Amino acid sequence: MRLSRYFLPTLKEAPADAQIVSHQLMLRAGLIRQEAAGIYAWLPLGLRVLRRIEQIVREEQVRAGGVELLMPTLQLADLWRESGRYDAYGPEMLRITDRHERELLYGPTNEEMITDIFRAYVKSYKALPLNLFHIQWKFRDERRPRFGVMRGREFLMKDAYSFDIDEASARRAYNRMFVAYLNTFARMGLKAVPMRADTGPIGGDLSHEFIVLADTGESAVFCDRKLVEMPAPGGDVDWDDLQSIVDQRTALYAATEEMHDAGRFEAETAEGDRLSARGIEVGHIFYFGTKYSAPMKAHVQGPDGKDAPVHMGSYGVGVSRLLGAIIEASHDEGGIIWPDAVAPFDVVVINLRANDAAVSAACEQAVAKLEGLGKEVLYDDTDERPGGKFATADLIGVPWQLTIGPKGLAEGVVELKRRATGEKLSLPLDEAIARLTA
Amino acid sequence: MRLSRYFLPTLKEAPADAQIVSHQLMLRAGLIRQEAAGIYAWLPLGLRVLRRIEQIVREEQVRAGGVELLMPTLQLADLWRESGRYDAYGPEMLRITDRHERELLYGPTNEEMITDIFRAYVKSYKALPLNLFHIQWKFRDERRPRFGVMRGREFLMKDAYSFDIDEASARRAYNRMFVAYLNTFARMGLKAVPMRADTGPIGGDLSHEFIVLADTGESAVFCDRKLVEMPAPGGDVDWDDLQSIVDQRTALYAATEEMHDAGRFEAETAEGDRLSARGIEVGHIFYFGTKYSAPMKAHVQGPDGKDAPVHMGSYGVGVSRLLGAIIEASHDEGGIIWPDAVAPFDVVVINLRANDAAVSAACEQAVAKLEGLGKEVLYDDTDERPGGKFATADLIGVPWQLTIGPKGLAEGVVELKRRATGEKLSLPLDEAIARLTA
Repeated sequence: MRLSRYFLPTLKEAPADAQIVSHQLMLRAGLIRQEAAGIYAWLPLGLRVLRRIEQIVREEQVRAGGVELLMPTLQLADLWRESGRYDAYGPEMLRITDRHERELLYGPTNEEMITDIFRAYVKSYKALPLNLFHIQWKFRDERRPRFGVMRGREFLMKDAYSFDIDEASARRAYNRMFVAYLNTFARMGLKAVPMRADTGPIGGDLSHEFIVLADTGESAVFCDRKLVEMPAPGGDVDWDDLQSIVDQRTALYAATEEMHDAGRFEAETAEGDRLSARGIEVGHIFYFGTKYSAPMKAHVQGPDGKDAPVHMGSYGVGVSRLLGAIIEASHDEGGIIWPDAVAPFDVVVINLRANDAAVSAACEQAVAKLEGLGKEVLYDDTDERPGGKFATADLIGVPWQLTIGPKGLAEGVVELKRRATGEKLSLPLDEAIARLTA
Repeated sequence: MRLSRYFLPTLKEAPADAQIVSHQLMLRAGLIRQEAAGIYAWLPLGLRVLRRIEQIVREEQVRAGGVELLMPTLQLADLWRESGRYDAYGPEMLRITDRHERELLYGPTNEEMITDIFRAYVKSYKALPLNLFHIQWKFRDERRPRFGVMRGREFLMKDAYSFDIDEASARRAYNRMFVAYLNTFARMGLKAVPMRADTGPIGGDLSHEFIVLADTGESAVFCDRKLVEMPAPGGDVDWDDLQSIVDQRTALYAATEEMHDAGRFEAETAEGDRLSARGIEVGHIFYFGTKYSAPMKAHVQGPDGKDAPVHMGSYGVGVSRLLGAIIEASHDEGGIIWPDAVAPFDVVVINLRANDAAVSAACEQAVAKLEGLGKEVLYDDTDERPGGKFATADLIGVPWQLTIGPKGLAEGVVELKRRATGEKLSLPLDEAIARLTA
């Protein structure tokens, strides 16, 4: 992609109302633009990152047995009256009346709708277990939207719903999502720690938040350092028996501020492993049994011929929020440092003298070779000053910068810079390309 | 994908209120489920087709120079007051009030928002030409939603917006979209004919509808048969000079009912080429000059140093509507016949005796080989009767059916059926796979 034909409106300064670094950097790097309080347009660079994050989430859901569908953004109020949540939800639900005075709402979540879909088609335990997920825009009318995409109103969420014949099977479904989440966040370069969460009026111990550790996180968290250092299990596991993987993690202390118990923290962790940090919630998984299936009569026939309400769980990932979380966890004074797996481009090729035919030819050759080898390349072919080009490349956080100028070219070398470390190498173009595609 | 672990709720009968064949087949084949009048959930099979169509639209937009971003579904009413359309739009606009009594709306289209984004960042002709597009859910509160996704309320649309310094450049932008649309629909196996459209109060001749011919189409159309037979130009064209390609087509008679002139039709077409048919609108392109940029003050500085409102066009494709249009154009009494490029799976492998170990082993070997060669495979491993399996395979319209049963296996053969023609071949498994991956 040639920068001169792209749409990358970077800003020198972030607006004053952007309080946290990820919000500031997302505005400055031209990733998003605010259209209303808590409602953002995703500019081309931001959309690229959003799509990569979405795709990682999708792949790990499918690997864990999820089947993707897509529910609409608007829902009938009557559906929420069946579960009793229409009145309970409060002013965060955006309520809408259409031209025929029918009551609709912009879905903040989809338990009711997926339960309705399930009960329409599934009648027997033979179709279970089933995990249906979608990745769709949601709306929560936050009283005070802030922190950019971290607490927006219109946001992209992955929500999965599991259906099982009994609690034992539902626990296996829960474990599959637990492991899928560990793998999902690890692939994005994040250290996300599962922490026991408040289950509210449902009770039970089957709810975990996944928390990314970041100095600028929204809340205090306390956990055993061993949990942070434990590698993700990966996809090559026995998806039907993940209990030991889950137990290994849930045995270690980890709690958000609301669930924290200083006494237990001290008793259950070794002094050197006691980690007090700040964190950002990026996922939440939940087993809620028959909370929706009982009132909504989503029954299935068991092997014994008897009908019973299906056991359900729900599993959310804040897809758009993850951009903010990743930036909070990975930036420096120069700008964003995207982990390779979610970066909008793999490499930016910087032309130091765009009006020099030889330099431009070398740049175009580099771009063509890299793209031919499957790399996503942003080519800065503009006539801006070198200093401005370097600052933009640092700001937008593309993992590699390949700089080609007249002086180096005369000596047969280009410069390759790793954004994360600042490490620079002077080397022939072919060697630079070989390193980038190794 | 194993059918036994998938979610494909087919129906024996379509609900009585589904009047047209595409709506009936989309419900019967488990592609969609109605959630409210004109609001649908996309079940897994339907979502697969939707994503393939979306991806073709995207690729052809990018090839024609479009840059993708993503605007939110909700917009501020004040933005539409700037263009004067807030009051003019009427009851099809879904108007929403949030918890702070701010007026929002669910975007039916995005001219105002994209003009606002443009004016915020672009100040000079040097950044032009620019074409920004997005693929996002829209809402139009149709008085009488019907025909399934063909006239829904919540629908997926690709809308592109071009920005140019003057009308001559804007016409080149228009031509790029004209050619992109020809290529887009051709890739989906559709014969879409560009027809001069009513430009309304704007005037000028720069508006075309793209109409798919189908016996069950919503409106009558009249055109020169040569236009239908003309192949799409393809991507290997000079994108800066497409006038002759456009002229070649616009010179031939083509009009929808509203624009039809029987006298001109007779005068301008040879008798054998005079085609009266029915059609479905799948795209609409429009040059509207400074209609939005003038009132909204989206000005750019020209090479002469003077500020002037930018020239704009907009270009829509009804992405979700295309599923209906394709089915209307391609089905038989057995069900849907998906063109290869948009099919949810490339091949369905039908196991005729799922409780026979040898047959199942042969099926699994076939599935693994085909998937290894990059094919998307649906594997019917259920214990349904063969007749039911064949009927389902025909109904869902996967282009190829590979059937493996005990009798054939004993003779060393499988059966390969082409859905579109019904042609069947009995041949060894390896030959069948070679044909499918040729």
